[in-house]
Order: sequence, then C-alpha cells, then structure tokens
Amino acid sequence: MPQGAFETPCLLLDRAKLAANIASMAARFRTIGVPLRPHLKTAKSIDVARLCQAHGADRWTVSTLREAEYFASHGLSDMLYAVSIVPAKIDRVMALNRTGANVAVCLDTMEGADALAAALPEGPPLRVFLEIDVDHHRTGLQPGETRLIDIATRIHSTERLVLAGVMAHGGESYASRSLAEIEAMAEQERRITVAAAEAIRADGIPCPTVSVGSTPTARFGTSYEGVDEVRAGVYMFQDVFQSNLGVCPPDAIALSVLTSVVSHAPHLNRLVIDAGGMALSKDRSCAIQENDCGYGFLTDEVGRLIPGLYVNGVSQEHGYVTTRDGSPLDLNRFPVGSLLRVLPNHACMTAAAYDAYHVAEADGHIAEVWPRVNGWSLYTP
Amino acid sequence: MPQGAFETPCLLLDRAKLAANIASMAARFRTIGVPLRPHLKTAKSIDVARLCQAHGADRWTVSTLREAEYFASHGLSDMLYAVSIVPAKIDRVMALNRTGANVAVCLDTMEGADALAAALPEGPPLRVFLEIDVDHHRTGLQPGETRLIDIATRIHSTERLVLAGVMAHGGESYASRSLAEIEAMAEQERRITVAAAEAIRADGIPCPTVSVGSTPTARFGTSYEGVDEVRAGVYMFQDVFQSNLGVCPPDAIALSVLTSVVSHAPHLNRLVIDAGGMALSKDRSCAIQENDCGYGFLTDEVGRLIPGLYVNGVSQEHGYVTTRDGSPLDLNRFPVGSLLRVLPNHACMTAAAYDAYHVAEADGHIAEVWPRVNGWSLYTP
Repeated sequence: MPQGAFETPCLLLDRAKLAANIASMAARFRTIGVPLRPHLKTAKSIDVARLCQAHGADRWTVSTLREAEYFASHGLSDMLYAVSIVPAKIDRVMALNRTGANVAVCLDTMEGADALAAALPEGPPLRVFLEIDVDHHRTGLQPGETRLIDIATRIHSTERLVLAGVMAHGGESYASRSLAEIEAMAEQERRITVAAAEAIRADGIPCPTVSVGSTPTARFGTSYEGVDEVRAGVYMFQDVFQSNLGVCPPDAIALSVLTSVVSHAPHLNRLVIDAGGMALSKDRSCAIQENDCGYGFLTDEVGRLIPGLYVNGVSQEHGYVTTRDGSPLDLNRFPVGSLLRVLPNHACMTAAAYDAYHVAEADGHIAEVWPRVNGWSLYTP
Repeated sequence: MPQGAFETPCLLLDRAKLAANIASMAARFRTIGVPLRPHLKTAKSIDVARLCQAHGADRWTVSTLREAEYFASHGLSDMLYAVSIVPAKIDRVMALNRTGANVAVCLDTMEGADALAAALPEGPPLRVFLEIDVDHHRTGLQPGETRLIDIATRIHSTERLVLAGVMAHGGESYASRSLAEIEAMAEQERRITVAAAEAIRADGIPCPTVSVGSTPTARFGTSYEGVDEVRAGVYMFQDVFQSNLGVCPPDAIALSVLTSVVSHAPHLNRLVIDAGGMALSKDRSCAIQENDCGYGFLTDEVGRLIPGLYVNGVSQEHGYVTTRDGSPLDLNRFPVGSLLRVLPNHACMTAAAYDAYHVAEADGHIAEVWPRVNGWSLYTP
C-alpha cells in the first residue's frame, strides 16, 4: 500500500522504532533481573503485545476491563487492572477469571475492600493489590497509615480474596526537570512501596509482590532492590513529552499522525493541516516543559524532523502550524495536498482517536494495519 | 435498563434537554427566516440528526468524510464538508455524489482549486464553497484579497466545478467575554462574508449562498441580512464552555459522563473517579473563562448540579475531584462505588471517546443506546 493511497489524518506506527523501544526496555530488565509487566494502556493492540511476548513478557497491566477482555480473548493471562476496583465491575472481572484470565485488581480504601468482599460472586480467588501513594500523583494509601495494615488484614482474612501485594505508580516523575530528579523519583517510588510491603509482612500478612513503575522511573531507576516487577507502557511508542524528559531521543518516537496540508494562511504566517484536536488530542502536558511542542512537532512524509516548526493551535479538524521563533514560514515548501507527520505530545491520548495503526516501514511503505481496542464497554445497541 | 446495570465511564445524553436545545435553535431560525444547516460534528449520530429533521432541517454540515458516508448511508443528502478539501479526498467525495449524497466542499487557495480541477474524475458537477476568514480563527481568504476573485473565477470557469457560495466560521466568538462581544462577532461574521459574496457577484460570477455560523453567533446574532444559511453544532448538546459564554443555562447541558467514585484521598482533599483524560478529553478551553470548570463540573447520579466541586486534574483513567475554593470535601457524601456525572468542558471532544450514547430520561433511566461515528476512515485490517 503506497503512502498516498489512504486518507489523512491517519495513525502511523514505525515498525523498526517500536521494535527497538520494546527490545531496549526488555533487555534492561533482563539484565537487572526483575520482570517487566508491560502496561498495554498505550498500545491497546495484541500485535504490540506479541512483540513484548517475543522479548519475554508473560504478565500484563491494563487500564480498562475492555482491554482485559480483548487481550484475554487473544490468550493473554496474568493481568493487573490498575484502576481502583468498584463493586459494579466485579462480575466482569470474575467472568474473565473463570476463563483463566487471572486478572488481579487494586484498591486503596476499606470501603472498597468491604464492598469487594460483599460483592464477590462464586469463582476462583481474586488477587488484590493495595495501591500505595508514593508522590501524591494518583491514588493510594500514604506510607505509614494505619489503614494500610487494616485493609491488608481485611483482605487477608476474607475468604476468596488474596492479598497479591502492593503497587505504586510514580507518576510525578513526569514533572521532573533532570535525570537526577527522575532517579530520585524512582528511588522514592521503590523505597516507599517496599516499606509498605515490609510493614504488612511485619504484621504477619503475606505480601508476595512489590509492583512499581512509570516509563521514566523504569528507564532511570538505579536500584530495584525489593521490587518484584516493573510496569511501564508509553516506552513502546515514546512521544515528545518523554523525549523532552530525556527518556528517549526524538528519533525513537514510533507513533505519528500522517496529515495533509489543507490550507495556507500567509497573513497569519501559518499553514493548516487536517490533524486537529480530534486527531492529535487536546493534551498539552508539554506546556510545563522547556521544549514545549504545542500539539506536536513536524516531520516530513517519511519521518525526518523539520526543525523549528510546531502545531501551535488546533480546532476540531484543523491544526495550525507555524515557526517556533516567529520567523517567516516558507509556505512554498509545503504545498496544499502535501503530506507531513506530527510527532505527538502524548502518545496515549493521540492514539485513542484511532481504530487502528498503519504500520510503517522505514521508507514510509505501509505493510500492515493493526487494530486497537478503545473505550470501556462494547455497546450492542 | 437501570442506571447501575452498565459500567462507568459511560456517555449519557439527556433526551429532554437534547430535544429542547434542538427545538429552540430551530424555532429561532424559523422565525428569522434563514435555514439552519446543522453541523453533525458534535453528535455524529443519525438518531440526533433525525431530531433535527423533525424540526425542519434538510441540509447538513460534516467535519469528516466518514461522517458524510455514514449519514449518506442513512439517507441524508446536501452536506457541506467544512474542512478544506485536498485532491486525495476527491474520489471519496465523488463516490458519495454518484449515489446522490450531494456533498459540497470548501477551499481557500488557488493551489487547492487547481488541484481540484486536475483531480476531478467523471461524475456530477462538484459544488465548491470559498472559505472567508472573518476573525483569524481557522481558515479562509481575507476580505478584500484579490485572490478571492481569482479563485472564484478559476472555479467558475472550470467545467464540472460550481461555485456554490462563500462560507465562514466565526470561531473567535468562543473568546467573547460578554453577550455584546458575541453580538459584535456575529455582525463581523455576517458583514465580512456578505461583502465577499458581493465582491464576487460584482465581478459577474454567480455566488448563490452565503453560509456562516458558530453556536454563539447563531444564538446571538442580531441580523442575518444577506445570509442564506447558518451552521452550528454544539448547541444540540451544549457544554460548560457554552454555558460560561452565556449561550445556555447550565441545566441545558444534555451531555454528561456517568462515573464511579473509585477512591478517597483525604490527605489531598479529593475523591477519585473513573473518568480521566480518556473519558473526559484533555480539553481545557474553559481555562480562559472566569468560571473555569477544570475538566468538568459534577452533578449527582440524575443530573442535579453539585455546586462547588470540579474535576481539577486527570490521569489516563483517573479524574481528581475537589472543591473549587479549597474548603474541606465531605468524602462521606460520596462513598466508593457511588455514581456521579461530569458535565463536560467541551462536548465535541468528550463525546469522541465513546462508540455510543446512553440516552437518559429525566429520572436517569436508560431506554436506548445510539451509536456514534468516530474517526476518519473505516479500516479493514
């Protein structure tokens, strides 16, 4: 399929860069001797998960039950659903587990543990992780809280609930300004989560697994002592945010949006592309970073960075491209109808607008289309 | 289907509010005597379009060719694809038009007109709108540019291209701070677009249709003299952004996201819901408004506003709810597992994360599920 034969905007996944990103993280943790539990929230694709399997992955993290059902239907098992469970979702988890999917859940409240115990239907024992708040970023119990032991005890003493361990996500690492700061966040994530497990064990309750992770802390942690597994997801694709953090070089970014130049606005020193807020997402997390990319950086049709340009605004289906320094944009270089790619600010959000990846070889040739699993439930109107 | 029987996050559409919003805008333009060309970019649903039809709509605006194909498959015709056309998309438009869909396109460059003329395959004549830039918001030719007449002449003199008229979108009305400002933006939109049509007509070129619109300028314009049709879309659902603009009262917002409380973080004075960046979008357009809602305001399970709360942060699948004034949040009011709704910042972006609407009656009962058409192409891996 030649590049021009499908329509823009279109989600591209560079096969070689994807493979290299997956291989590199797998090799790092093979050397460290701690298993990776890849987070499939970014890729949402069995084809991508298969590449991780080829590098040894045998356990998974998911962010929705729809992901869990999709990956289970493709034979994956041992999944951690890493969003605090609520009673209304238990039946769906247990239906999966009766098929052998072995989905574990997480929670951080006594109300949640009580409700889980009350709602648990017949079926195999349910593994529960206690979430620990290591940096006030997301969810979790604070280190040293007496609730930690109380909830662990509640789970341990409830028939058919099994305390699988403790988990944490050092998401504040995303706000780091230097590698030293990421290293410090990784150490904080490790230290606090291991301490929580030790506090539970000191109370005589088995706490088999310490699970931590985020792409930056997985990439730059200097010690994983006491850690039993590491979770990360966006590293497979990378994005401008991760590149700005120093997690990867810009040319490691495997995900991009192929777009057409649709208009020129010389009076506004900009060109307009058909990738707007819908196609790129409205994620502006880069705004806190020095090398702010707006809604994304530009490359040519085959992925070579065009320095000095960025998408500085979006409407629903229009993206506005101009120069970062305000210098005149040479519109003749970008005729109406020509193709560009946008390297996204945040891969997870951008990919969510698409049903599928067009898998691109290094020359831009598209050989395969890989479906994605979006949303939360499969509606049958 | 009782409310608790499906899973969160879930997109709700309040049937009575939707119907009232559609009826009210239709009645306004029936009185004014100018046809509405409803923009289906927000709803992306044939069921919603049918409600507009019941109020007299017989022409449509779409933002993607996938919308055009979907609506044509349900029998709609006379559609304006309101994103500047590029040659690679012509075949798809012409395939639709050979089935009678009567899709018009728009452009604003001579390169675009030349390419269109060169790429146009056999088929019925193609109607082309020239886009006029009334406020430097999106795309379009500047008023008074000689290119305007040149491009109009090029289209008029090309066999099988028909100049359908001029169109503009007064999107800068979204930045208004008062109703007087919206009125002024509406008048600017009307005046400049009508003047462009008159300049073309003065050159002896037929320019049958003057098409303008945005939800704020459609709601508050004081004159539509010389205007032949008005385009608007988000008015069907409304959202917090429109409510803050004064376009509607908060209780007119028909779209919301049903969400579960999944965690309590007393140490951070917040509760956590399972509607995060994926479920709400990362749109923060409200940030420029005085009554900034963060990522959305909260209501109870049946849609009654809970004053003083907002979603002040999101991760991929987590939303963080706290008080707007920093006062202590009474977590006991919101047990883990209880349901809330989020009124979205920007309806178009939030709805895009979902395959379907759950249509809610006033008591929260769900009687129907209406599918949506997302994305740009139907991939067949």
